[in-house]
Amino acid sequence: MIERIDVSRRASKLIIAGDRIETSGLVANDCRAPIREQTRDVLDQLDRLLKKAGVGREGLLRVQIWLADMKDFGAMNEVYDAWVGDKNQPARACVGAQLADPGYLIEIQGWAKR
Amino acid sequence: MIERIDVSRRASKLIIAGDRIETSGLVANDCRAPIREQTRDVLDQLDRLLKKAGVGREGLLRVQIWLADMKDFGAMNEVYDAWVGDKNQPARACVGAQLADPGYLIEIQGWAKR
Amino acid sequence: MIERIDVSRRASKLIIAGDRIETSGLVANDCRAPIREQTRDVLDQLDRLLKKAGVGREGLLRVQIWLADMKDFGAMNEVYDAWVGDKNQPARACVGAQLADPGYLIEIQGWAKR
Repeated sequence: MIERIDVSRRASKLIIAGDRIETSGLVANDCRAPIREQTRDVLDQLDRLLKKAGVGREGLLRVQIWLADMKDFGAMNEVYDAWVGDKNQPARACVGAQLADPGYLIEIQGWAKR
Repeated sequence: MIERIDVSRRASKLIIAGDRIETSGLVANDCRAPIREQTRDVLDQLDRLLKKAGVGREGLLRVQIWLADMKDFGAMNEVYDAWVGDKNQPARACVGAQLADPGYLIEIQGWAKR
Repeated sequence: MIERIDVSRRASKLIIAGDRIETSGLVANDCRAPIREQTRDVLDQLDRLLKKAGVGREGLLRVQIWLADMKDFGAMNEVYDAWVGDKNQPARACVGAQLADPGYLIEIQGWAKR
């Protein structure tokens, strides 16, 4: 009934339950990269997880963004706005939060429907 | 299949997908207003979005509240408690977080079912 | 259509809407306890709420964790990893946030499907 994909010891990166799809909080592979690169990396991961769930960007319902420092809001948005395009914009919330490693500048979580 | 309402360049303020309703993080129109006024403004916005989705307060499942400073917890709750009333209380979480503009004191996101 | 369980003046600790189950943000009963004890207490509360909703750990879809200070990440994870076991791992996000009382070190919210 519940599909768990990319499962580590601690969490599943992708959960599929009926028509509901949700991801874990995603962080960059390189926590020394600057904000634009980390944002691109994390959005790429989100795209790949959506694809594994069999949905495209048009199935995305909502995105939660945490920034380690809201001073990166503008630079993150440059990358985000280009990624999200001009249709099928999901709901979004973006707030500041201390992240698991001081090098992480951004963490993103996504919800979709298929 | 997914309805997007109040769509800006960056996000949809309201998403309706089947019986699921979710909003973006909502902030006050006047980011110089004090906490009680910002709370009332944001809860008014939430009410209006629920109405657009065709549900009333009784369809509200959950509310996420972020405060720029948890010292405003008491003042926010005065307004929130009066708003939520004594029936149909949704699930709730409220934590502190840096918000997009230093003037924003509160951000609220809501989930409902119709 | 929506069941509300453990309802206080301000919020319902457990919401059941069709096959969707969600909890409020849960905090420890003893806000002077150290992080491991607070984590155990909150995970116990989550287990009890899931049970009230008629689901076990295998129905858990996602967990949101807030830590008052991410320095507690390692100690919290010791308790979390033992609790979550090696199957049915839910999606997870964990970020730092100021909590309602300075004594609270952790807050957890859960989503499940029955």
